[in-house]
Amino acid sequence: MPGELIGETVLVKDQSEASQIYNKGYYGYPQSGGGIELDLLEAVYLQEAERLVVLEDGKEVAHADLIKRAARTASEFEIRYIVYRDFRQRGYIVKSDAGEFDFRVFPRGGTPSTAQTKYWVKAVSERAVFDMRQMLELSDMSDRTRKELILGVVDEEGDLTYYRASSGAPTGREHPQSEGPEVEGFLLEDRVFVTDERGGQLHENGFYGKQIGRTLQLSLIESAYLMHLGRLVIRADGAGKRTSLTSFKKHAEDVQPDFELRLRAYDDLRRRGLIVKTGFKYGSHFRVYDGDPDTHHSKYLVHAVQWNHRTIWPEMSRAVRLAHGVKKEILFAMVSSKRVEYLRLRRVRP
Amino acid sequence: MPGELIGETVLVKDQSEASQIYNKGYYGYPQSGGGIELDLLEAVYLQEAERLVVLEDGKEVAHADLIKRAARTASEFEIRYIVYRDFRQRGYIVKSDAGEFDFRVFPRGGTPSTAQTKYWVKAVSERAVFDMRQMLELSDMSDRTRKELILGVVDEEGDLTYYRASSGAPTGREHPQSEGPEVEGFLLEDRVFVTDERGGQLHENGFYGKQIGRTLQLSLIESAYLMHLGRLVIRADGAGKRTSLTSFKKHAEDVQPDFELRLRAYDDLRRRGLIVKTGFKYGSHFRVYDGDPDTHHSKYLVHAVQWNHRTIWPEMSRAVRLAHGVKKEILFAMVSSKRVEYLRLRRVRP
Repeated sequence: MPGELIGETVLVKDQSEASQIYNKGYYGYPQSGGGIELDLLEAVYLQEAERLVVLEDGKEVAHADLIKRAARTASEFEIRYIVYRDFRQRGYIVKSDAGEFDFRVFPRGGTPSTAQTKYWVKAVSERAVFDMRQMLELSDMSDRTRKELILGVVDEEGDLTYYRASSGAPTGREHPQSEGPEVEGFLLEDRVFVTDERGGQLHENGFYGKQIGRTLQLSLIESAYLMHLGRLVIRADGAGKRTSLTSFKKHAEDVQPDFELRLRAYDDLRRRGLIVKTGFKYGSHFRVYDGDPDTHHSKYLVHAVQWNHRTIWPEMSRAVRLAHGVKKEILFAMVSSKRVEYLRLRRVRP
Repeated sequence: MPGELIGETVLVKDQSEASQIYNKGYYGYPQSGGGIELDLLEAVYLQEAERLVVLEDGKEVAHADLIKRAARTASEFEIRYIVYRDFRQRGYIVKSDAGEFDFRVFPRGGTPSTAQTKYWVKAVSERAVFDMRQMLELSDMSDRTRKELILGVVDEEGDLTYYRASSGAPTGREHPQSEGPEVEGFLLEDRVFVTDERGGQLHENGFYGKQIGRTLQLSLIESAYLMHLGRLVIRADGAGKRTSLTSFKKHAEDVQPDFELRLRAYDDLRRRGLIVKTGFKYGSHFRVYDGDPDTHHSKYLVHAVQWNHRTIWPEMSRAVRLAHGVKKEILFAMVSSKRVEYLRLRRVRP
């Protein structure tokens, strides 16, 4: 089938060929004259499959030359092409008229005339910046329109990994208890020791801390949270003056510069009825349980970030892969001055 | 058994009690007078187990007070205590006279009179800096004396994870071949397209690049390496002037600021007979095969770092956990101006 390269499109004028390629795979955009206009993604794909001969001024345009031409007219053509090609090769119908997104993809077996868009797809280079805020907005937009947001991430060797991004907070049933005795503890560098025998109640009732020998050890975050709940008093020197929450937090900030950020996320997760422990072993901030940590595996790994956090993609692929490897889901807790929002990211194979 | 707290030690003067505690668990250091001197780790441990009553000026010292005292006399006492206690509780004999290290530990069932030290142990807070150079030196020192270097890393909740650090380069059998045709490619943003039909030979013979449709796509690193081997020519505009390796590398540095660092590690791994592909999916720089990538799983994840790289521990625990989750080993390729050295880190349960 011949098509003529005009600017950034390839025109197929022959009406019967145009309607055949349109009806079969929904390639191109029908023109008023009866032909179809292919965008350069479609043209390169059909040329690669030897279903299209591209002509310019009557001469055939070689495959490498069409790729170079396409790369000149739009940035990251090679990235979008890899994603486009993969969906097409797996039998999906893919269209580029997708607004904020790169593609809209119909459900397997569905066509623009029989089905609604299933996926909004963004084609992303592994070298692109990952912008949390923007990703949350795209997720919200997809959720509102009942589509799935799929990110097709292309690495430097042209390998493709798909991620699904979505939003929504996790919930549990273990609600924080402000009733109960106020126990005494003392601070040693970056942890709080409770030798008070009632310390055990903190562990039984909310799974705070870790019993080590005759002492219960609380982390700085647990301690600040329990001080706020009125369940823990810290005295500077055993029987001395109470340490205020403000000065405790100040000390904690010295030990851990992002303490306040983490505490905000910890607090939000606890209020949502979840049990939160450190995620150090997994290289994340928290591991989160929706049941007794002694009998359940943790369900989520949670990383607290500023609401407008920007990072590199390899960081994200590492976080997702890690969570996946230990059968957990990674959530990013995006902390702003008003609230904590959650972005979920997981590997999928659409 | 009573002991007297004097400065930073607890003296057990009764000869029969002293020799019993020394002979049974090798606690303390025998004194010329016949008694033993316990260090504060030992004293806190024996007090916790209710095997020791600590006295000062005839009055008993409470457990919490002994801990506070110990914490004042040495930094990170609480970290070292958690590691000490864990080894002891699992039946190991642990001594603090360990030079550069925190502890030396005897093999299970072994004692200072029947066995050689098996592990050199460092007790580390998750908040400590991870210094690659220092870790490599400690690994080398342990390897030379045929001991295993164990790092006991304590997280903010007092949980303990053990890592073994060792040095040594990986090797494979797929040596780079500088013979073979020189193929032509063109650069598109951050990848090189080879439309030359002989491109397939690069893939068959060394597993370079990825075939996408009718083109072979090479990464920037593969391209620089193949240009250096004399297997790839890049022309600026199809038939134009050859791009020099220097100007190609300059372009690559613009796209990827640590390009030279990665290339040095890539080059070293290839020379060692390994097949090296991007590790993007795993959030590391490379995945490394010692056999055909189409039929073998990759064996290592490799991250290239400056020889004097310093980082935070959660970064390291993430890298190790990730590699472990996908049944690979993590290697850090430490690149200096003269050579590439390798530090291996894996989770163990000594």
